[in-house]
Amino acid sequence: MHAIGVDIGGTKIAAGVVDPDGNVLRLVRHGTSSDDPAEIERAVVDAVQELRAEHEVGAVGVAAAGFVDAERSRVRFAPNIAWRDHALRDSLATHIDLPIVVENDANAAGWAEFRFGAGRDAEHMVLLTVGTGLGGAIVTGGSLLRGAFGAAGEVGHMQLVPDGQLCGCGHAGCWEQYASGRALVRDTKAALVTTPERADALLRLAGGDPEDVTGPHVTEAARAGDPLALELLEDLGAALGTGIADLAALLDPEVVVVGGGVADAGDLLLAPARRAFTEQLFARGFRPEPVIVTARLGNDAGVVGVADLARG
Amino acid sequence: MHAIGVDIGGTKIAAGVVDPDGNVLRLVRHGTSSDDPAEIERAVVDAVQELRAEHEVGAVGVAAAGFVDAERSRVRFAPNIAWRDHALRDSLATHIDLPIVVENDANAAGWAEFRFGAGRDAEHMVLLTVGTGLGGAIVTGGSLLRGAFGAAGEVGHMQLVPDGQLCGCGHAGCWEQYASGRALVRDTKAALVTTPERADALLRLAGGDPEDVTGPHVTEAARAGDPLALELLEDLGAALGTGIADLAALLDPEVVVVGGGVADAGDLLLAPARRAFTEQLFARGFRPEPVIVTARLGNDAGVVGVADLARG
Amino acid sequence: MHAIGVDIGGTKIAAGVVDPDGNVLRLVRHGTSSDDPAEIERAVVDAVQELRAEHEVGAVGVAAAGFVDAERSRVRFAPNIAWRDHALRDSLATHIDLPIVVENDANAAGWAEFRFGAGRDAEHMVLLTVGTGLGGAIVTGGSLLRGAFGAAGEVGHMQLVPDGQLCGCGHAGCWEQYASGRALVRDTKAALVTTPERADALLRLAGGDPEDVTGPHVTEAARAGDPLALELLEDLGAALGTGIADLAALLDPEVVVVGGGVADAGDLLLAPARRAFTEQLFARGFRPEPVIVTARLGNDAGVVGVADLARG
Amino acid sequence: MHAIGVDIGGTKIAAGVVDPDGNVLRLVRHGTSSDDPAEIERAVVDAVQELRAEHEVGAVGVAAAGFVDAERSRVRFAPNIAWRDHALRDSLATHIDLPIVVENDANAAGWAEFRFGAGRDAEHMVLLTVGTGLGGAIVTGGSLLRGAFGAAGEVGHMQLVPDGQLCGCGHAGCWEQYASGRALVRDTKAALVTTPERADALLRLAGGDPEDVTGPHVTEAARAGDPLALELLEDLGAALGTGIADLAALLDPEVVVVGGGVADAGDLLLAPARRAFTEQLFARGFRPEPVIVTARLGNDAGVVGVADLARG
Repeated sequence: MHAIGVDIGGTKIAAGVVDPDGNVLRLVRHGTSSDDPAEIERAVVDAVQELRAEHEVGAVGVAAAGFVDAERSRVRFAPNIAWRDHALRDSLATHIDLPIVVENDANAAGWAEFRFGAGRDAEHMVLLTVGTGLGGAIVTGGSLLRGAFGAAGEVGHMQLVPDGQLCGCGHAGCWEQYASGRALVRDTKAALVTTPERADALLRLAGGDPEDVTGPHVTEAARAGDPLALELLEDLGAALGTGIADLAALLDPEVVVVGGGVADAGDLLLAPARRAFTEQLFARGFRPEPVIVTARLGNDAGVVGVADLARG
Repeated sequence: MHAIGVDIGGTKIAAGVVDPDGNVLRLVRHGTSSDDPAEIERAVVDAVQELRAEHEVGAVGVAAAGFVDAERSRVRFAPNIAWRDHALRDSLATHIDLPIVVENDANAAGWAEFRFGAGRDAEHMVLLTVGTGLGGAIVTGGSLLRGAFGAAGEVGHMQLVPDGQLCGCGHAGCWEQYASGRALVRDTKAALVTTPERADALLRLAGGDPEDVTGPHVTEAARAGDPLALELLEDLGAALGTGIADLAALLDPEVVVVGGGVADAGDLLLAPARRAFTEQLFARGFRPEPVIVTARLGNDAGVVGVADLARG
Repeated sequence: MHAIGVDIGGTKIAAGVVDPDGNVLRLVRHGTSSDDPAEIERAVVDAVQELRAEHEVGAVGVAAAGFVDAERSRVRFAPNIAWRDHALRDSLATHIDLPIVVENDANAAGWAEFRFGAGRDAEHMVLLTVGTGLGGAIVTGGSLLRGAFGAAGEVGHMQLVPDGQLCGCGHAGCWEQYASGRALVRDTKAALVTTPERADALLRLAGGDPEDVTGPHVTEAARAGDPLALELLEDLGAALGTGIADLAALLDPEVVVVGGGVADAGDLLLAPARRAFTEQLFARGFRPEPVIVTARLGNDAGVVGVADLARG
Repeated sequence: MHAIGVDIGGTKIAAGVVDPDGNVLRLVRHGTSSDDPAEIERAVVDAVQELRAEHEVGAVGVAAAGFVDAERSRVRFAPNIAWRDHALRDSLATHIDLPIVVENDANAAGWAEFRFGAGRDAEHMVLLTVGTGLGGAIVTGGSLLRGAFGAAGEVGHMQLVPDGQLCGCGHAGCWEQYASGRALVRDTKAALVTTPERADALLRLAGGDPEDVTGPHVTEAARAGDPLALELLEDLGAALGTGIADLAALLDPEVVVVGGGVADAGDLLLAPARRAFTEQLFARGFRPEPVIVTARLGNDAGVVGVADLARG
């Protein structure tokens, strides 16, 4: 059975027809205004109708950032859209006569990697999405871990550093503040100011202004061998690996999949992550060790995963 | 069907006949020498035979500290007994003609609380055992989380403080170093030295020598209102609550059950734990919150839990 | 001999005639635009001439935020004024025919407390100014500690928390990020969001908007017994006391004087500071302990201190 | 004028005749039993008489670990000898008819480096002694900083890591726990256990038993290029450099001198120390920066320094 997956982002929605092997048969993207929830729902309905005009499908999955309740029906809270305890499934169901499942977008991407990507051979997997922030999804014993209230998997808000960097969530020292694109840019700007003698390569890429530096600048400079950029990715990787060791102590996965834009740095990020992980893993020598690998499905993971979840 | 549960401790084994409602119909205890694995196995076999002489049972569960493999058959590593990748189930099966299941002791206790104790109304639960060390067990969606290799649930070795107190496991800053009986005694001794003007009550209980102070001394002094003892339990509780907030971000349980000897302090420990948890919990206001409660089954939890797991 | 002290702030200058006992005989204040260094210098010259018209004086001291060189002549760097390696003394000397001394403003205030205020009976003193930021001055053996290059006493930028809160200076975890008015406001806003059930009193004072809360609101609420405000001041005090213990290990002062706007909270701040200090002080019992007291000279300390330093 | 310097260690005393240029004209060493304070005093008197038989001297300086009062007369507390508020100067004066000065041993060594060694061109200097523990001495404006009660300069007990490694002093996270020989050995043992695949070179030097590894083993292995040993010295150096940045923010020295046994590792230790220092130094670019160099006077520094201090 084919299913449609819809991934609602901050500025656009992506929708695709996905076959049972995880192949995307057709994909459409529409820009949206996140200020207007009604418009977003209309765009979802339109995209579904557009795809159904060409493909026979049996279910629809909808992925969005935020908390989705245990019934995978209501959005309790979305950070980027004005949904607060919103009955998204019922609202969409008045326009779409197919079974609908709503899921958190990181969970959807994690499920896709588990079913069709870097975690396909595992029963226990963790996905980490190192993008602007740090998201995650947990699969245990072949099932997505959703928690009692649909709020599980918020890896980015585990505390890594007591009294550490203030997070947008209001707490201090969240892992996300040390292992995300936002953290990378913040630390890069600070290093350009505090150690200006090492700043040349990155400043050149940023057009001369430290405030304009971006994560991809760091990756590019690191690839060219710039010592500061390499150190910045090493520090980020070390923070990533340290947290992964915590997850391994708790969840004992076979594989940890790292995706998101910052993971484009590949082994410049993952080699130091593996090193820190190895140095921190509990009870080494008395246990098989999980492997840390890059994600395979790229930007379509949310669409693929939520379609598969909708299929049931 | 009745089942036998056997809980192998460092200096004794407890074995009991457990009915399907978690009642212990008969319990026996035997001292053991942990230096001799063969003697321990003989004691297990003897206890099982003794109990079977009086009760009809259909399965046997055996709980021990350490890593148990995913098949719940081999002990990969035990901290207190000289088992290294030992085929405990097969070895016992040559003497016991019943289905046998081997399980980690914290997992067994957690399962007992989940099935018959403080977690019986939950689907998602975490057990924390605050004894000499800090152990734990995780139940998600009604199943015990064992991980890919049977090593899940090692909560005590998540890192709470980067570059923090050295742990017996070789790493620094493990949660166990801040939320366990051993941590309490260590910090108490240090406080008696660094702030002697607050030491009177505790020193009196310890017979005058700071080196002889124990965890129960702290609880007793705190109950009598001693400010230093209260502060020590508050600090321990805060460390407990901070880590629980991490677990909640990741696992989203309905209930966190706190057992172990240190939990005898009750609300002197749990009130500050709840406070720190509340101050640290991610996304409060947009999610139901787990409750933190004391364990109900006491010392028999391991026997009850592993018998129930053996039953199937 | 009387001397004139001039204290250059961000938005105004204060100038006074100070007698040898530290009494301010006459004080004038002028608003300034910190955008124009020339205007500031003219305002200094004008104020000096105005005061000299009425009083016989023998020297002029000028205090400003920033680094002043070892000769107390050039301003290497000022955070609020566009002075970069500026020969302030020589520039003023073309208009003022008196001996002139330039000094860092925190050093000036510290000197005043040492000579005429809370440190007058000590030979070894530390001043901490808990204002928007955290400044300091050190007196050892009766002399102001200026360091090799005039940069000593930057207490606010000692690291309190590794990988902690990012500071405006580009580094992470500076003491100032945990013991200053800015830290208090930041943590208050965060607490209003993360524990809204405790927010009522502070929100009322802030007119309903967490973004409008100020340090004085916290002090006011704490005085009225509000638990959240009390806890916020306790946390700030604890951070203050912990750092003071470091200073005592290093400098062994008799007295630590705490001034600045946040110190208006008095014992609501200093009691927890003393407690944390006591718990952290090295080698208690084998040394006399410094006392922690509030500053006495208030806003005029800079004027008084720099006048006295100019007197020589 | 020549003077005699006596340095009282845990198991021996060294005594020497020192000329005004810091040259040691004659040196004697005697073993002592630290259990008997009277025997130590007799050994000091004997050594002084032995040296005076051959050299004309005008003063005697005596250096010992511990707190020495502000009059440089009484030992308030010594960690290795049973002196508690002991009038050491007066006691020695009954047998030695020369002016006597008592001084803390780290202060003595620091003074020697300041007068005749690596700090001779500076007015503001810090000495760090990285031996079993971490000691220090501070010179400001050409004077030894002794503090109000003779307890200044205890750099090793500034807090580097909140809730960090427990220190023998009873507090957690002291700098000494991260930048000393004891810390190096502790971390080496832990690394041999947690990352055994990197342990070969160090284990070979230690004769196969991780418990037998020493600091010099690490230096030797690092010199031979062993990655684990290099990393251990890098971590130690980073901790050293981070703390030095704190000292620089506070004291603004021209030079930081690093001595003690661990400093034998030279740039294997100091290069990472300088790197961490540079990354952490406050207000770089707006201030001259102190240099970090190795000590020059070796084991005789205490004798040389305390003789010079006695000379007055």
